[in-house]
Amino acid sequence: MPPDGLFDDSADDTRTAIMEATYQALVKHGYADLTIQRIADEFDKSKSLLYHHHDGKDDLLVDFLEFVLDHFEEGITLSEGDTPDERLRSLVGSLADPDAEPNDEFAGVVVELRAQAVHHDDYTAHFTRSNEFFHDHIADIVAEGIEEDVFREVDPDRTASFLLTFANGAMTDDVTTDCPDAMRAARDELDAYVENCLSKAERR
Amino acid sequence: MPPDGLFDDSADDTRTAIMEATYQALVKHGYADLTIQRIADEFDKSKSLLYHHHDGKDDLLVDFLEFVLDHFEEGITLSEGDTPDERLRSLVGSLADPDAEPNDEFAGVVVELRAQAVHHDDYTAHFTRSNEFFHDHIADIVAEGIEEDVFREVDPDRTASFLLTFANGAMTDDVTTDCPDAMRAARDELDAYVENCLSKAERR
Repeated sequence: MPPDGLFDDSADDTRTAIMEATYQALVKHGYADLTIQRIADEFDKSKSLLYHHHDGKDDLLVDFLEFVLDHFEEGITLSEGDTPDERLRSLVGSLADPDAEPNDEFAGVVVELRAQAVHHDDYTAHFTRSNEFFHDHIADIVAEGIEEDVFREVDPDRTASFLLTFANGAMTDDVTTDCPDAMRAARDELDAYVENCLSKAERR
Repeated sequence: MPPDGLFDDSADDTRTAIMEATYQALVKHGYADLTIQRIADEFDKSKSLLYHHHDGKDDLLVDFLEFVLDHFEEGITLSEGDTPDERLRSLVGSLADPDAEPNDEFAGVVVELRAQAVHHDDYTAHFTRSNEFFHDHIADIVAEGIEEDVFREVDPDRTASFLLTFANGAMTDDVTTDCPDAMRAARDELDAYVENCLSKAERR
């Protein structure tokens, strides 16, 4: 499933419809076998709208990634919980959850598109901005925990960089390997890291 | 650069030459623009050898991945250092080193091929086996550190799963974003994790 509410915006019906068709075509065919025609096949409106708005497959896909990031930046809830500790585990841990099947489809799309950054600068620019956004979001939760005296005086930037790298690795492993036990073990150790390296509560 | 000695084996000259041509073509064109013809363009021997050995692009690429993993399994040095602590930082940290440019080319190839696992089971089977190999290698170093009384009595499996997820994320971030400062910060926090969650030496 796509993130909650991603395709609900009716402010720009045509763009939202193009984005939803792009997502469905990506899920169905993957990046390598994706064509503008296959996106058009998922699109209910006039195909000319699709061709009119974009200069080709990669232009459309980078636009799709920006559309997704805009949605996150508009402030949808990325983490749940009453305390910084719970919010941190919710945000980072949800990406390392082998049992959260509904996320896999979206994670697969992101992992495939991220790999395009190896050869295409437009994708690199996007994923740099995306990493910076999630880094800052995690760092804010860490800083909040320090402020509330539940986390130790760690460097929020350093902690956020570490946790984001872990989260990106977990998302990738989740959709490219079949190792559910290892993912559960990684998630357990994430909990131990938060407890031992961040929380002020007694360490193991 | 490819891993040390990857294409040195002369036991099967033809296969090694096909593998090297595949690597060069991948580096140059990326997965999406790769064709058997483009691999043939990098190949000095008779093109018919190439077509004879493989059933198509993905068959050849999965064979390439197996060739690389066999090379690692044959026991090349994956980590350097005199102590388990140093070997662990060397293995996991090398993947999170934004200054290690020679590795980027190979990491880019791996990240692109790994993304194919989202839609192709043969790649998933390979990266599952690859993750298991590196997991076991990390777990062995952790177990050795416990044996030598330099690491605390942690669960080697859990620690290895966590560190491998981090390492895979670092490799991906390295070739898909332009965030060298964040990568250095993540690496610093990796050192702190080893020190605070693993080592028996005094914690911060």
